[in-house]
Amino acid sequence: MAGGGAAASALSSPWRALLQRALDANAHLKHSTFFQLATVGGGGRPANRTVVFRGFQEHCDKIQINTDARSNKIGEIKEWPLGEICWYFTDSWEQFRISGIIDVIDGSSPDPAKLQQREKAWFASSVKSRSQYLGQSPGVPVANDDHIKDVHIDPSAGPVDAYCLLTLDPEKVDYVNLKSNQRLMFTRTQEGDESSDWMAEKVSP
Amino acid sequence: MAGGGAAASALSSPWRALLQRALDANAHLKHSTFFQLATVGGGGRPANRTVVFRGFQEHCDKIQINTDARSNKIGEIKEWPLGEICWYFTDSWEQFRISGIIDVIDGSSPDPAKLQQREKAWFASSVKSRSQYLGQSPGVPVANDDHIKDVHIDPSAGPVDAYCLLTLDPEKVDYVNLKSNQRLMFTRTQEGDESSDWMAEKVSP
Repeated sequence: MAGGGAAASALSSPWRALLQRALDANAHLKHSTFFQLATVGGGGRPANRTVVFRGFQEHCDKIQINTDARSNKIGEIKEWPLGEICWYFTDSWEQFRISGIIDVIDGSSPDPAKLQQREKAWFASSVKSRSQYLGQSPGVPVANDDHIKDVHIDPSAGPVDAYCLLTLDPEKVDYVNLKSNQRLMFTRTQEGDESSDWMAEKVSP
Repeated sequence: MAGGGAAASALSSPWRALLQRALDANAHLKHSTFFQLATVGGGGRPANRTVVFRGFQEHCDKIQINTDARSNKIGEIKEWPLGEICWYFTDSWEQFRISGIIDVIDGSSPDPAKLQQREKAWFASSVKSRSQYLGQSPGVPVANDDHIKDVHIDPSAGPVDAYCLLTLDPEKVDYVNLKSNQRLMFTRTQEGDESSDWMAEKVSP
């Protein structure tokens, strides 16, 4: 995945090397960049959906996810910004559970650096992927005879209102390898944008 | 998966036919019976992990999952019994998000019918799978020189204390097919063990 490779080796976070190895070992599978993101919705209801890994934010461990600003999860995450990713690699039998705080970056962000980051992520997506944000709001009832309209997007145009970037800042990573039967628990001991400090512990699977 | 086939066609829940079709279409993949179960832990933290589909409970839509009674999730689920399964089929590009209430059935259950159900699920597991419950508690720190001991289990012996059956009773099923770009939302309108009533609505993906 774009942004995953070179950046990983430059960073000290010990789980990044394991994740990069898993991404490389499973790169022949389209779904190797898919994972499940769990959050908590209204009334404390767990919510869980498949999303696509869009690489790491530059110079840090934040995991990027593209989403539709009109989907239910945006309001829910703004209300309760905790998430846990479960990323299972089907070929190498490795699982990463990555928990952390999610930042919602839509067009209304007052932070110019975040808006720039959102723009960068927008242009890193394919034009086809971008055109999804011009379609109907997700989850809205449709009549049986509704047809999907052809949507045209100007490849040089910046992010549309419906495009939202999520970043998850990892605080804990629970890694298990079901082939070697090994499990490692990584816990962040210190906050830091450039070189977070992590503690690693070997635990029973 | 055992228990999934014949039972599905006998029931009226409309999403069961879709799920059975997905299981059949992806049956050549070992991981097609794996899904991610999201729950809510202490302090409202979302938790998410890969588990294995162990079929439906007889005569109803409850989804069975085997787990270790010594894992953190058991206490968490007893405290807050809501869950959402995210089941992505990597070959047919279909996703089922199944939310409902989870019942924890360990050896301390006072209900003889549930204990019987737990015993049935225990014997439905392979002997190798059963032997896992005789190992060390999951998530406990291990020294680097610890070796995994060989564990022998009597194939005729009933469930051990560490074995716990979870059942998730679906209340809502959000189905999306990324090939046909169709999404259906199923909502249970009536409780009932034998023939739940469901409402289906076509929504935008």
